[in-house]
This record gives sequence, structure tokens and C-alpha cells, in this order.
Amino acid sequence: MRARPLCVVSVDAVVEGTHFRLDDGSATPAEVGARALGAALSDLAAMGASAGEAYLALGLPPQLSEGDALALVSGAQALAHAGGAIIAGGDVVRSPILSLSVTVVGWAEHERELVGRDGARAGDLVGVTGALGGAGAALAAREARAADAAGAANSAGDSPALERAPLPTPRLAEGRALAALGVHAMIDLSDGLATDAAHIARASDVRLRLELERLPLGERVAETCRALERDPYELAASAGEDYELCFCAPSELREAAEAAVAEAGATRVTWIGEVLDAAPNGAGVSLFAGNRSEVRLDGFEHSWQ
Amino acid sequence: MRARPLCVVSVDAVVEGTHFRLDDGSATPAEVGARALGAALSDLAAMGASAGEAYLALGLPPQLSEGDALALVSGAQALAHAGGAIIAGGDVVRSPILSLSVTVVGWAEHERELVGRDGARAGDLVGVTGALGGAGAALAAREARAADAAGAANSAGDSPALERAPLPTPRLAEGRALAALGVHAMIDLSDGLATDAAHIARASDVRLRLELERLPLGERVAETCRALERDPYELAASAGEDYELCFCAPSELREAAEAAVAEAGATRVTWIGEVLDAAPNGAGVSLFAGNRSEVRLDGFEHSWQ
Repeated sequence: MRARPLCVVSVDAVVEGTHFRLDDGSATPAEVGARALGAALSDLAAMGASAGEAYLALGLPPQLSEGDALALVSGAQALAHAGGAIIAGGDVVRSPILSLSVTVVGWAEHERELVGRDGARAGDLVGVTGALGGAGAALAAREARAADAAGAANSAGDSPALERAPLPTPRLAEGRALAALGVHAMIDLSDGLATDAAHIARASDVRLRLELERLPLGERVAETCRALERDPYELAASAGEDYELCFCAPSELREAAEAAVAEAGATRVTWIGEVLDAAPNGAGVSLFAGNRSEVRLDGFEHSWQ
Repeated sequence: MRARPLCVVSVDAVVEGTHFRLDDGSATPAEVGARALGAALSDLAAMGASAGEAYLALGLPPQLSEGDALALVSGAQALAHAGGAIIAGGDVVRSPILSLSVTVVGWAEHERELVGRDGARAGDLVGVTGALGGAGAALAAREARAADAAGAANSAGDSPALERAPLPTPRLAEGRALAALGVHAMIDLSDGLATDAAHIARASDVRLRLELERLPLGERVAETCRALERDPYELAASAGEDYELCFCAPSELREAAEAAVAEAGATRVTWIGEVLDAAPNGAGVSLFAGNRSEVRLDGFEHSWQ
């Protein structure tokens, strides 16, 4: 196809058994296609690029029906259409298990349209788009139900918990608007806020101080967590697959960033913290909860420092 | 990265158990990496594009050692380097089986530098680069040895057969030179000459008449086939993974095409047939052997018509 001056590329692979299961009804083929494409497009959104062409490499097991294979591609197609991308090709091969690898190409006219992870500076505000924890709460509820079914004592099985993770909505227009405005650093939330914010911190050699209770919770995350007896803010900070954007902007861009995101689409900015010098604790992320001191999330320390 | 005006993309996926086996010693991790990248680059070669960036999506099973995973990437890296491509990114995920999906981006300055499959015309000569049948003969010898080991009566186990398929050498410089010269149609031989030539025939609505005994046989293909009691030319016409180029050129380009390929690299052109009108038999491929009438290869009819 005819190229534009700058090309960026993102690759996301998902494999049955590692990233999703079809056999327990927790994912449909259409969702598998949509999630894989959503993850790759979200990465382009965080760079401020426009989505271009997507290429699918599909490994199909013999027991997957043709209808399911078509549903998977349709799921990817629907998400591509919503994001302005076109599925331009790929490869289909036989495989013992279902796998899908998505490569998306994004474009920009000028380097100044794009943003990386390494420009955050002390004094910047930290913002996120949308709401967090939806996919994580659905996963936690599913795991609790599975534990119930296995005979463990847990009341979550009867709770009004989230049934399914919301589908990703890559924030492409928001990402382009924020990048064009000149935010200093941006990343998409695929692995969870604590992990992904630490990528910005390390790349920029700064510390991000985030206020847990400022995190915007997704729909029904609070009630699901109540039923599961979990802290919803800790879940929202640690769970993955939100596919929202986290960015660092100088404080004078506060109103402009809010306006740009509001104009771009169907979501808004929430300011969740600030950027500090890396010293004395080194580059990383610090989470604070209200008047309490620093919060440590189990299993996440390794990615913060 | 900074783009050039025209962008073409090729995707190739390979999956353990479908495309290769590591457990019987028939492929090493380095070969798996090299073959997957070679297949994708070969497709760019057939378009006349220059190789740009390659992206690897790697599904790694727990039992694969870190050394084997690195060897796989090194195998791909070596082939990328030889073809002028750079491995620019990708994704690594856990998977029950080893899988590798390669997306390569190719570039061109002008549309006239590129060639498709749909321009072949009656009167064109049909040429191929390099030699055919090497990968197919190695596969046939391996299958015969496996049958021997299973107790079948077959003398091929003691024959001086090809031990391993040669690694692909994508004909990138040759493809660019032929496309620049103005050949009418081109394809790379991944699935086998009979199958791939039929893609040109159908896209161009012509019939390709190929002379079996003019096919250039790869090193040791003839002796391997003798030991296996197979016709080497039929094997060379039907077996895949040669990754040579097949092209259709007007007869006035004969010497220029030979010179362009000779200058471009380490191989030469062999003329193997001619392009006829599709009527009376429809678009497709006809194979002729010496004075004998038309040859039908078992299992290949479906792809010819």
C-alpha cells in the first residue's frame, strides 16, 4: 500500500491455554479475535499513531468449526473497523491449538505527532483515560466461581459479579490528540497500571507517585470486589487488559488534555498522581492510599524498581 | 521507522507438528527460525520489493530451553541479515507448542518497481531461478527412513540420500532485478512449482505449459530419487519449500533476464516453458514430459484448474 512518512508497528500474540480458554465458555472466538486486535491497536494508540493495516496469522486446530474461525475473524474485523484499521492479509495454518498473532502497522506524518515512554519529567501530572479494573474484576469473579464449583467455601458464586470482561476499545483518537498536544510520555494499560506505569518510570528515569483512591473504577468493579472481599482500587491498579492510556503531561496542559480527550471520543481523563525525581528511591512507581502510607501490591514489587 | 513510498507485507506462520518437528531431529530451532523468515522474505522477493523490517511473534513451550529459543532467533537473525532485513520487534508468549509467526515489511520507491501475479500473457516465456526439489527430496528420504525404522521393506535407509533440506535463500536481489526489468508476473515457490505456477495462471487467466524435464534439479535430488524409486522431475514439480522464483517474461527479455539474475547473485535462470491462452482447457498449468503426453501429478489436480 502507499506509505505515509513514518511507520510504527505493534505485534500481539495470543495462545489458547495461555491467554484464553474456549472450553469453559470464558471466551468466544469473536472475543479472542477482538482482544488480540484490540491489544495491538492499543499499542499504536499509546504512540499517537493512526491505525493502518492489520495482518493476522491464525493457527487453527482441527476441532474448531469453520463458523468459529469466521467468527474469530469477524470479531477482529469489527474492532479493526471501529479503530480505522483494515485487515490486509495474513496466514492461516493448521495447529494443535488455537493461536492468533496480530501485526498492526500505524502511520504518522511527522515525528512530532508521536510520543514515547521516555519523556516524563518531575512535576508532570499523571492521567488515565476511561475506567480501570473491568477485565480484572471479571477474571477474579470467574476464578471465584471456579473455586466454588470445585467445592471451596466462597459466597461469590451467588454474587452479582461481572460476568465477562468488557471488550477493549483502543483509544486511538484520544492517543493521537494527546500526542499532538505534546504530552511527555504515554503507554497503554495492557499488563496493569502498576506494571505499565513502571515502564514509563524506568524509561524516563523518574518516580510516578499514584493515589490509589483516585483511580477511576470500571462499571460494577466496586460491587464485584465487595462480593469477593477484595480492595477494588488495588485490583484496578494491578489487573491487566484495561487498554486505557496512561500519560504524563506538564501541569499547564491539564485543561487542554481534558478537552482533547473529551472531544476525541467517549471517555474522559482522570488525574491519578504526579511525577517525582527518581531519587531517593530510584525510578519506579509508588502507590499511596488516602492517609495511609505506601501500599505494596503482592507480586508487583519486582516490576516497580 | 521512516517509510518509503510503497509498503508491502508478507506473513508466514509455522507451528510445531504441522510444519516442523524438533523431537525427531528433522529440524533444529535455528532452522525453524531461518525457514520462517526465509518464507516471508521470499514472498517479498517475488514482488520485487526490498526487505525492510521483520517482526517475530514467538510462542514458546515450557520445555524449550532458553538456549534453543535464542538459537531460533539467531537463525532468523542470520537469514534477515543476509537478506538486508532487520528484526525490529515482536512478541514472546507462553504456548503449549512452539510456534513462530513472521511479518516482514518490504519497501519500494515506485509502483513500477513491483510486480504481481496477474500480468502473464500468451507468448511469454516461463523461467525459474536456482534449482528445485532439494527440500522435497530431503523430506521424502526422511519419510522413507521413518518407514524403514517402522519395519517396512525399503532400501532407502542405506542410500546416500539427502540428509537435510537446504536452508532457504530468498532471491531478493534477483526479484528486484527481474521486476525492474519488467517481467509480467512472478511468484515464489513455497508450495511447489505446480501449485504456485497455477496461482499465476489463474490470476493472469492463462495456461502455463511447463516441460518437466527442463526443470533444474537441486544437488543430490536425482540420486536421492533414484534410491527412493521416484521420478526426480515429478518430485521437483510438486514438492514445496524451494523458495526460488518463477516468472513470466516476454521473449525479448530472455537475455536481459538471464543477465540480470546472473549479476544479482549466485544463481541463474532456467527456462522451463511458455504461456498459452487459457482456452481451450481454462486457466491452469499443463506439465509435459519429453515426447510423452501430459503428466498428471497425484493430488495436484485440485490446485491446477
